[in-house]
Amino acid sequence: MGPSMRCRVLRWEQGTRWHQDQVVGEEPLELRLSGRTLAVTLRTPGTGDFDLAAGFLLAEGLIQSREEILELRLCPKEGSYNVVEIRLREPPSSFEGLERHFFVTSACGVCGRAGLEQLSRRLNPLPPGPHIPLERLLSLGASMEAGQRLFSSTGGLHAAALFDERGELLVVREDIGRHNAVDKAIGALLLQGRLEQAKILFVSGRSGFEIAQKALAASIPIVVSVSAPSSLALELAQEFGLTLIGFFRHHRFNLYTGADRILGLEAQPT
Amino acid sequence: MGPSMRCRVLRWEQGTRWHQDQVVGEEPLELRLSGRTLAVTLRTPGTGDFDLAAGFLLAEGLIQSREEILELRLCPKEGSYNVVEIRLREPPSSFEGLERHFFVTSACGVCGRAGLEQLSRRLNPLPPGPHIPLERLLSLGASMEAGQRLFSSTGGLHAAALFDERGELLVVREDIGRHNAVDKAIGALLLQGRLEQAKILFVSGRSGFEIAQKALAASIPIVVSVSAPSSLALELAQEFGLTLIGFFRHHRFNLYTGADRILGLEAQPT
Repeated sequence: MGPSMRCRVLRWEQGTRWHQDQVVGEEPLELRLSGRTLAVTLRTPGTGDFDLAAGFLLAEGLIQSREEILELRLCPKEGSYNVVEIRLREPPSSFEGLERHFFVTSACGVCGRAGLEQLSRRLNPLPPGPHIPLERLLSLGASMEAGQRLFSSTGGLHAAALFDERGELLVVREDIGRHNAVDKAIGALLLQGRLEQAKILFVSGRSGFEIAQKALAASIPIVVSVSAPSSLALELAQEFGLTLIGFFRHHRFNLYTGADRILGLEAQPT
Repeated sequence: MGPSMRCRVLRWEQGTRWHQDQVVGEEPLELRLSGRTLAVTLRTPGTGDFDLAAGFLLAEGLIQSREEILELRLCPKEGSYNVVEIRLREPPSSFEGLERHFFVTSACGVCGRAGLEQLSRRLNPLPPGPHIPLERLLSLGASMEAGQRLFSSTGGLHAAALFDERGELLVVREDIGRHNAVDKAIGALLLQGRLEQAKILFVSGRSGFEIAQKALAASIPIVVSVSAPSSLALELAQEFGLTLIGFFRHHRFNLYTGADRILGLEAQPT
């Protein structure tokens, strides 16, 4: 896949029609050094995997100059999973210290085709419903903003909120990491023993693969984000029956998949 | 530290004065299961570490219900490094499969106090200069926008650009991951053998710890972001002499540290 993917989108505002749109491409890239996994990252494919590898090596202090890189080689695609093999003039003698150092997570999920298949085995497709009236959906933004506290003082936070099927706000959590905010919101309800009430996950930023994955793992059927979804999120949503809505404002949104859960859309086919 | 930190900020637009402001808190959290590191994430402290742990366990398929969690315990602070110890009813018998599964990175950096100290040893404080006239700084946004391509078609990308000290655009890269975009931009110039020309890193989103770290590792002395910096980025910038600018628009910005590199500010002390 290239750096973006064409998809069908239901644009509400403009008379509810299906349009052709682009979503940004998202695929895992594995950086492999001397045959071992250094890092796996979800990136936009088709634009600079070698640059990414070189920048990563420099940032992590594994090289100081490009002369220390002997070879960067792109392995043949395994599914849509890409691997950059790195050869250094002086490879680290041990990975002992590195692992602790490198394998930092944004509390994110699965990578690679193997990971996707593994995920498919442990997740179940969502059952149909619930059905949310359009006006209830449109009211969620205001509830979420009322629940946010830190953002107004710093402007630097992501927020995640969970709503029940009547549109009642159950919990809102903020964090500098988008994935952390989602983990906190879901985890809070899980610990309170009322996660099964959550039917809508609302996130302040983009909805990438990992956001969709977290919603599925918690059996939350509707994901609404203020910004764009990714291609991998859309694929996952289609496979497991998740409703995916992006670019949400008080008066408009794009629906990518799962339109049957929103009542009152009456989409005309393109 | 709480979920945000007070700091001094030079707000340009309003007559160039130092103001008191808040930046969002950012600190590493380690999730430890049966004594082993499951994940380390940079999160906003003080709000729901147990929720984060529970949500992460569910998202990763390690638990299906809260009854499977025997204990969540916050270990005493080591520096500003926090650890949640997790005990499960049925801990995974092996971490073999998990490591590959969990230790996913957003191409990010160092975590934990140990990591910060390790970083201090391998990074050098930046020398003074270069000195950038205010009007040159203000012109960067337009150059960067002109260089972006994918964003306009998908709305879902982060961008990172590098400029030389005359304000000339050297490279711009886009990616679904903010850190990936920075790694790609820096890596591209590194591979082209002209990284030493880069004096200004411009990022489309927030500037957290990892962005500041990548700039330092590449000896780029000025970081400009369109959104907010984090507390940890600010600490790192102060320690290593990085100029950190946030909330950048064509007509305004906030400067957090390193004002000596921007000519024409003439700040009055508060």
